[in-house]
Amino acid sequence: MSDAAHMAHALALGRRGLGRVWPNPAVGCVIVAGGRVVGRGWTQEGGRPHAETVALAQAGAAARGATAYVSLEPCAHYGRTPPCAEAMVAAGVARVVTALEDPDPRVAGRGHAILREAGIEVVTGVRAAEARRDQAGFLSRVLRQRPMVTLKLATTLDGRIATASGESRWITGPDARRTVHAMRLSHDAVLIGGGTARADDPRLTVRGMGADRQPVRVIAARKLDLPSEGDLAASVGEGPLWLLHGSEARDDRIAAWTDLGATCVEVPVAGGYLDAGYLLQVLAERGITRVFCEGGGSFAASLLQVGLVDRLVSFGAGRVLGAEGWPAVGALGVDALSAAPRFALVETRRIGADTMSVWEPSAKQG
Amino acid sequence: MSDAAHMAHALALGRRGLGRVWPNPAVGCVIVAGGRVVGRGWTQEGGRPHAETVALAQAGAAARGATAYVSLEPCAHYGRTPPCAEAMVAAGVARVVTALEDPDPRVAGRGHAILREAGIEVVTGVRAAEARRDQAGFLSRVLRQRPMVTLKLATTLDGRIATASGESRWITGPDARRTVHAMRLSHDAVLIGGGTARADDPRLTVRGMGADRQPVRVIAARKLDLPSEGDLAASVGEGPLWLLHGSEARDDRIAAWTDLGATCVEVPVAGGYLDAGYLLQVLAERGITRVFCEGGGSFAASLLQVGLVDRLVSFGAGRVLGAEGWPAVGALGVDALSAAPRFALVETRRIGADTMSVWEPSAKQG
Repeated sequence: MSDAAHMAHALALGRRGLGRVWPNPAVGCVIVAGGRVVGRGWTQEGGRPHAETVALAQAGAAARGATAYVSLEPCAHYGRTPPCAEAMVAAGVARVVTALEDPDPRVAGRGHAILREAGIEVVTGVRAAEARRDQAGFLSRVLRQRPMVTLKLATTLDGRIATASGESRWITGPDARRTVHAMRLSHDAVLIGGGTARADDPRLTVRGMGADRQPVRVIAARKLDLPSEGDLAASVGEGPLWLLHGSEARDDRIAAWTDLGATCVEVPVAGGYLDAGYLLQVLAERGITRVFCEGGGSFAASLLQVGLVDRLVSFGAGRVLGAEGWPAVGALGVDALSAAPRFALVETRRIGADTMSVWEPSAKQG
Repeated sequence: MSDAAHMAHALALGRRGLGRVWPNPAVGCVIVAGGRVVGRGWTQEGGRPHAETVALAQAGAAARGATAYVSLEPCAHYGRTPPCAEAMVAAGVARVVTALEDPDPRVAGRGHAILREAGIEVVTGVRAAEARRDQAGFLSRVLRQRPMVTLKLATTLDGRIATASGESRWITGPDARRTVHAMRLSHDAVLIGGGTARADDPRLTVRGMGADRQPVRVIAARKLDLPSEGDLAASVGEGPLWLLHGSEARDDRIAAWTDLGATCVEVPVAGGYLDAGYLLQVLAERGITRVFCEGGGSFAASLLQVGLVDRLVSFGAGRVLGAEGWPAVGALGVDALSAAPRFALVETRRIGADTMSVWEPSAKQG
């Protein structure tokens, strides 16, 4: 098997950690000796142990003289454990193949350097494009001080998310909803605006997937005027709940939600809304690398308007609600078509009775 | 080869006529003798000659003792030529396989009867479901006194068709536009509302496809207040243009458009709009079997509201315009999700940079 094939294996292992290992990157590692895989590992729940530690432990003495495939440069800094690069050296690994350099300033090439100084052959950049996509959240947090943002829209054929009276359950079918729950699981946090929290009172937890860990639930509610009795309030204990609010949130509300077990964080207000950029920065500071935003229309607009959407997943249901229905995206202030946010199609397919398409920001605007 | 395989051949030939043979059905015919195809035919431009006439002429003496596969029951009535059923008898065909009975009251089983009375073996119902789909327009005209209606929506990811200022060219890319032109060609008529005609001043002709025949262009314009100078007016000579208007259309406008070469037809008004059902009835009376509706939002709503859409084709472009943009579908007056028009997904795929999905009315509402 080629380096590329073994790296594909390591990448696949690494993806198992997406949504479960923040603030750390989700890394995969495969150790190959004499053409046989002798160790496999991926970053464990909460970020530790690292993929290399798990794979080296599994390989044991077989690691001596072997090749290690790691989807990200091994770490070089002392944390709770010695750095992975030194563990590789100690295990006697002869060759290390990586996909990407780790941009974390505490690593940033020093992992590779430790290996090379110990006489280990180092090859890097194998399947780098795939690794960059898998690590989009971690890279974003390190390089842009904000998590990567996936925006989900689930609309009728005419782009509506609810009837005029606010009825929205369920526009898409059970297969699409199951896909959404799986997507929540692969993100560190699920994020919605206060309007949707008031209208739908959602629990935002992942259900029916055997989930042993819930993504952080984040609600951007400027005044913190959320229903204090209802499904959301009742489900605080089911997983972390962070409420981002402005300075005008009443103290009694902050106290009440804090008492329930939620974490309340103040964020500056800009133009009448919580500042979307600052809000994401707060999440990154707290370690969040991947955010799954599920609306509503106004909040989606506030992200799109300032170019903060890295991936857009659009579900389309076979219904038509007409112009009185709630729009999927609120006012954007776009005058000319050339000024409208543009996305390039990644894939499109059927999910049960609905369609799903995935889009990424288009390089060329206009 | 089986009966089903030869019928698939006949159906494929028949489809060549879609959009080109109204008021007649687009039929295909294959004549097989000794396992070899000795004649092929399909309904010609404008509806004559019929598929059987063409195929029998090609087969000549080889038709004697042969099997004829016809996608619709051969006709039984004298028109400009003797009926096809009698021509089959005269040619000495031994066996006739058809997909569907022709519901036209002048035929309605009499074609099959003529064949059987002459001692010909008749098998019918082969690939009937496909034939029914191909003949949807003809069957609709005969059985419902209206053409089948395909509604096209071409929207942004948030269901918009134009910016607040009305800019709409081009939301979808060149591949999607080419697909739309091909769809126009397979319909007898292209239909838009007056609002779109005023905003876009489209020519509505099929361009860049080597088209030797244009679908009838139909515009529903209650007051007939269309731009009298512009692309539409300049293109009257490029293909038939029918303007459907209400009783309040000014006589000078009717006279001006008639002078330009357009056909003006008065249609009753219901609730401030041209009555959509009546309008389609007018088209059916004039022989139209397949209509391709391209909006705008209000006109699409008027069709959806009364269940007059038989097929919905939705193109999705990677843009977001926000809530100020023009909606793809106007007000529908839908209060509950269960009352919203529902469609079942037929197919979805990528067309160039855009998505396309095809939907048909869902049997179960709610």
